[in-house]
Amino acid sequence: MNKKNNFKLAFFILAFLAFKMPALAQEVLPKVAPAPEDNPTTTEKVILGKVLFFDPRLSIDGTISCNSCHNVMAGGDDNRPVSVGVGGKKGGRSAPTVWNSAFLTVQFWDGRAATLEEQAKGPLVNPVEMAMPNHKLVVERIKMIPDYKMLFEKAFGVGDDKINIDNTAKAIAAYERTLIVPARFDKWLSGDKKALLEIEEQGFETAKTVGCFSCHMGPNFSGPQLPLGTGFYQQFPVYKGSAYDKKYQFLKDKGRFDVTKQESDKNKWRVASLRNIALTAPYFHNGMVQTLDEAVRVMAKTQLNTELKPEQVTQIVAFLKSLNSEFPKMEMPRLPTTEGYTLVK
Amino acid sequence: MNKKNNFKLAFFILAFLAFKMPALAQEVLPKVAPAPEDNPTTTEKVILGKVLFFDPRLSIDGTISCNSCHNVMAGGDDNRPVSVGVGGKKGGRSAPTVWNSAFLTVQFWDGRAATLEEQAKGPLVNPVEMAMPNHKLVVERIKMIPDYKMLFEKAFGVGDDKINIDNTAKAIAAYERTLIVPARFDKWLSGDKKALLEIEEQGFETAKTVGCFSCHMGPNFSGPQLPLGTGFYQQFPVYKGSAYDKKYQFLKDKGRFDVTKQESDKNKWRVASLRNIALTAPYFHNGMVQTLDEAVRVMAKTQLNTELKPEQVTQIVAFLKSLNSEFPKMEMPRLPTTEGYTLVK
Repeated sequence: MNKKNNFKLAFFILAFLAFKMPALAQEVLPKVAPAPEDNPTTTEKVILGKVLFFDPRLSIDGTISCNSCHNVMAGGDDNRPVSVGVGGKKGGRSAPTVWNSAFLTVQFWDGRAATLEEQAKGPLVNPVEMAMPNHKLVVERIKMIPDYKMLFEKAFGVGDDKINIDNTAKAIAAYERTLIVPARFDKWLSGDKKALLEIEEQGFETAKTVGCFSCHMGPNFSGPQLPLGTGFYQQFPVYKGSAYDKKYQFLKDKGRFDVTKQESDKNKWRVASLRNIALTAPYFHNGMVQTLDEAVRVMAKTQLNTELKPEQVTQIVAFLKSLNSEFPKMEMPRLPTTEGYTLVK
Repeated sequence: MNKKNNFKLAFFILAFLAFKMPALAQEVLPKVAPAPEDNPTTTEKVILGKVLFFDPRLSIDGTISCNSCHNVMAGGDDNRPVSVGVGGKKGGRSAPTVWNSAFLTVQFWDGRAATLEEQAKGPLVNPVEMAMPNHKLVVERIKMIPDYKMLFEKAFGVGDDKINIDNTAKAIAAYERTLIVPARFDKWLSGDKKALLEIEEQGFETAKTVGCFSCHMGPNFSGPQLPLGTGFYQQFPVYKGSAYDKKYQFLKDKGRFDVTKQESDKNKWRVASLRNIALTAPYFHNGMVQTLDEAVRVMAKTQLNTELKPEQVTQIVAFLKSLNSEFPKMEMPRLPTTEGYTLVK
């Protein structure tokens, strides 16, 4: 992206913010996530996508599924500093939660994927994640599992060519768009004032006062609901030079700069969601910060140049816990079989 | 075990077989599995055990759960030659299915665990599986996850000491004892003659005629239902010297000999179940045989000194597929949370 485009984007975002400003108070989580025009969410796609999401045969050695690092039986991540892929290989960044990820307007920490569809294709062929040599082999393997044919037909229509990498990603994304689960906080925001404890309310007020929501706004506490593909980024740290920078090696990874090669994108990151943040320790792109208390202190210092009092930290952490999703009961998918042979060596 | 005990055991098994002989035709899978006296199956234990079974935090780096290698969304194993533990480390033997494992009278390929309880403790501290340094640390970690306290209390009564390794194993075993799922074949055996295709019936008759059921008898096709802890073993190969021995390195692993150090146990193995065998490729203790057809040919040659005709193989394979469990819908467990911190580094 060149400078001119950058200016245009900044202008667009500013115009958008100015227009939306009155609505920029926190918002209740919508029941339905926006989907791209070419991938409307259907029951059949969701069913297929859920099976694909749990299928470890999409990794080269049959050990890693999407759910391995984005565990929906937990907070939607793996609670590890960085994820572990096939062969024990470690990734460079901490896995973000898949819960409510449909409300992020770009995907990955650096926003390098515009949609969940685009995101889903990445880990499949990342050598430190699922490590398939290429998408062609992913598709070939899916084709070798007989019952996927029926599932793809139901989702995308009849035809051998319907089993392709785009439809694979579309189905996974469609499933992920159903992983929307509100929290006690949403009840409170909708008027049920008993839904929060006093300390949680205080925490919400404190977070507002110190300025957390100047970035963590919107329905997913991850910025305004910009059009899909338009990221909401922030420098981290904004206030460089605190002891945290060195202690937690925050400046080592250049973030969005690695995508755009723009000087202004150095150490810029997509604003992370606060939903389920209590369930997704450790913290930040490198997972170097172990606890939520410390993450709150770090944010206040590095982003707002504020030293929080201990009781403020306690309040904010209490509020953040009220953003844990109230997870529903979910049925396990059944993985389609290969009878009498295996696809992984 | 010394020779005298070996003789006693052989005598016991022979006496048992003589007594049970009229009943040694194939049996319908019972609805309830035998449980040890000190671990009766209760709903509360099963609920806890299911959560533990899916919890990757029982492995040192938080990546491997029991379900990683014994995937109940699939055939109860991982469809790999040998399993992959933390750090990409490979085990020495192929993971057996957890489905209907409650009917195996000893556990592991070499029968080194008498019960599911004893089995469950092994992988937790096996350095190439879940790799916890010791059971004490497993228990400490469970104690650090607040909601396990409530789950253990419900299952085992109040008291901090109730969270211990024995109860952890008991709960997992109790859950595993619920993983009993019959197949179409059981319907057929119960009188529903339409439950099998003609070729599957032919396969059953062929398998009977060539002698498969002289070992693969009983409700789990893994030998007679001996008392828990009494294994039913067989030499493999019985007829040494076929080309298969070398091709698939069958003699490399000494099997039960490594447990007992008895010369007579060299290359002896617990007789494997045939249930879900079509879903659990690749085959044998080392997972060296890729397909079920080949596994059937190998068994006939090495155990019965029989060269099967191609149509016999086709029939037997068809019959074996009728032993696939008709899996039920299952609810995902929700993993108890640690709010604001993580236990894995």
